[in-house]
Amino acid sequence: MSDFTDLWNEIAPIGRADSGGYLRYALTEPELTLRDWFRTQAARRDMLVTDDGNGNLFAWRGEPWAPGTVLTGSHFDSVPHGGGYDGPLGIVSAFLAADRVAKSRSIAIAAFCEEEGGRFGVPCLGSRLLTGAIAPQQAGALKDRDGISFAEALGKTPDGAQPARIGNLKAFVELHVEQGRALETPVGVASAIWPHGRWRMDFAGVGDHAGTTRMTDRHDPMLTFAFAVLAANKEARLTGAHATVGRVQVEPNATNAIPSLVRGWLDARAADTGTLDQLVDGVVRKVTERAGRDGTSLTVTPESVTDEVAFDEALAKQLAARLGNVPILPTGAGHDAGVLSAHVPTAMLFVRNPTGVSHSPAEHATDEDCEAGIEALAAVLEELS
Amino acid sequence: MSDFTDLWNEIAPIGRADSGGYLRYALTEPELTLRDWFRTQAARRDMLVTDDGNGNLFAWRGEPWAPGTVLTGSHFDSVPHGGGYDGPLGIVSAFLAADRVAKSRSIAIAAFCEEEGGRFGVPCLGSRLLTGAIAPQQAGALKDRDGISFAEALGKTPDGAQPARIGNLKAFVELHVEQGRALETPVGVASAIWPHGRWRMDFAGVGDHAGTTRMTDRHDPMLTFAFAVLAANKEARLTGAHATVGRVQVEPNATNAIPSLVRGWLDARAADTGTLDQLVDGVVRKVTERAGRDGTSLTVTPESVTDEVAFDEALAKQLAARLGNVPILPTGAGHDAGVLSAHVPTAMLFVRNPTGVSHSPAEHATDEDCEAGIEALAAVLEELS
Repeated sequence: MSDFTDLWNEIAPIGRADSGGYLRYALTEPELTLRDWFRTQAARRDMLVTDDGNGNLFAWRGEPWAPGTVLTGSHFDSVPHGGGYDGPLGIVSAFLAADRVAKSRSIAIAAFCEEEGGRFGVPCLGSRLLTGAIAPQQAGALKDRDGISFAEALGKTPDGAQPARIGNLKAFVELHVEQGRALETPVGVASAIWPHGRWRMDFAGVGDHAGTTRMTDRHDPMLTFAFAVLAANKEARLTGAHATVGRVQVEPNATNAIPSLVRGWLDARAADTGTLDQLVDGVVRKVTERAGRDGTSLTVTPESVTDEVAFDEALAKQLAARLGNVPILPTGAGHDAGVLSAHVPTAMLFVRNPTGVSHSPAEHATDEDCEAGIEALAAVLEELS
Repeated sequence: MSDFTDLWNEIAPIGRADSGGYLRYALTEPELTLRDWFRTQAARRDMLVTDDGNGNLFAWRGEPWAPGTVLTGSHFDSVPHGGGYDGPLGIVSAFLAADRVAKSRSIAIAAFCEEEGGRFGVPCLGSRLLTGAIAPQQAGALKDRDGISFAEALGKTPDGAQPARIGNLKAFVELHVEQGRALETPVGVASAIWPHGRWRMDFAGVGDHAGTTRMTDRHDPMLTFAFAVLAANKEARLTGAHATVGRVQVEPNATNAIPSLVRGWLDARAADTGTLDQLVDGVVRKVTERAGRDGTSLTVTPESVTDEVAFDEALAKQLAARLGNVPILPTGAGHDAGVLSAHVPTAMLFVRNPTGVSHSPAEHATDEDCEAGIEALAAVLEELS
């Protein structure tokens, strides 16, 4: 077995569900187990581990936050029943790349907290806190589905922005499994992250008896919700964007009751901000009109909206050339690298995803491609540090 | 305060949620508290309480199951956040009507178990068991959302059918709040229950990343589900029937993941079986076609389908005349009376519902109309016993 296979197998069982996917929500038991594993790996390499008071862990070769440090790493947390590669591949690869980089280099490895937003609803929560993109009080008050706040889970109100520390970083490089089918070589370099966001749509109607209420007397918010799902799909196809409604809550959610409230989340992404705005505006306009006909109401709340991230173009070209002219490609997925890029020269390496499937138990990358990713990351860390 | 107001206020706080509606699921703590209250009420009236090994309680004036007994009563359990009248009104009214009926009459009061199907999915579960409409093993294996089986909740496999006992009943009369806006007098008599049923629709697709998966590569079951919601609504309007999708489950139910599975329940009702069949067949045909276009699949499982119930016509006319020529009207709502009616001469009394709202915290009947209901029920019990 390769170094990669050995280390990968250590974490493979942690948080795995019967579905074959992972339940590794931020600061829950499986993710805490992975954090312990992170500390063990760091200790084996004589790397000091610190946390930043925001839920993010860092392992340092050299002085913590020393000027000129090149940071790499990713996140442990998963979406519900997500794949094993999305996040952890970047941390496992970081430790193995560190083994192949000269000991004199100032490098560090990060495990960012709540990248998926799977528990507290705001993706990249750890990196947003560290960079000041979200206020500590606001982040601390976010609640999970059981009503536990982020501050409770963390054990404190997060410390928030640390600009002086981030300013000392020379670069951040995140290695990540590619999540579409756009990459046909083992490794590529990111050009940009599409602008994207999450909008909560609350459809309010009048709860009533499913058997006795005449169709013409109804104010059924499920109808407006269903219309919104189809409208978002159509609008995305027309504009060449991506739109998904993957999460729903219904009150009271009973077979024989017309719902009083349906809550759906719109995930929308596009190659540029104009297209994204056009998509969301189009959906909201059409659904509001439909709500009028259904006798229901629609309230839209943007939960997190991120403008386009263009990674440092010169850096991307430099790294692609260093790796043998590998492809440079954009992605529709958000990443901590996107948040960091506003503050630090930032790059991303992608490892090929043969099926393009991600956020699913079927997510996969070959061991050979993962090995190529580690080699590439080691070369990039040598190049930059 | 009237007798009704006093007794009603005793149970009003039990199982009440912040919504103002009730969480009184069968055999959970609030419903068990209501059963204790039932025993207390029976004891105050020197009525012996028995259970039938199926979760149903009976309070007897006279020998249990003595030939010629007239049974009344209803159920305690609620839909999630349902109103307080649907079910309990029939039991509270039964005790107060018993107080107004000569002590020599052989009457009994029932509290049927799991009428709503809100916990174990099959409505009228207790009365179905008692009459043999469902097998004890099958009923016992039904599970609630936490995986607890009905047999576990009951503490035993249910006893099942008791035809000799039911055969001894002279009549069953259930008093219930009306659930539409069809009744314009304080009290009415039921003619029939529309044929109705619940069909579980499993929409299967391919889970994937919401950000990176091209629209044309998707197999998104949420689209097919949304189409089904709108198709059911349209088909119901065209056929003059009622159709509702009020309950949904999504896997994994994450904002940034295309679902792998969406499960929705179709509640459909119509004035006759032909129309109901036409409705459900039409929905299934159109949704199956759509699933083909979405690259998803649809599996439909009938969970409970009940043919039309026509209550004893002569009995209905007799009671309507006895009550001063009150209206005789059908209902779209299922009731234990519908199950019993295949085995015992059965009638229903409805109490006016001024807004028609039911299965909602806003469900309401006036104290005056409830008093009129008690008077009517007492008259009917005198008439029949």
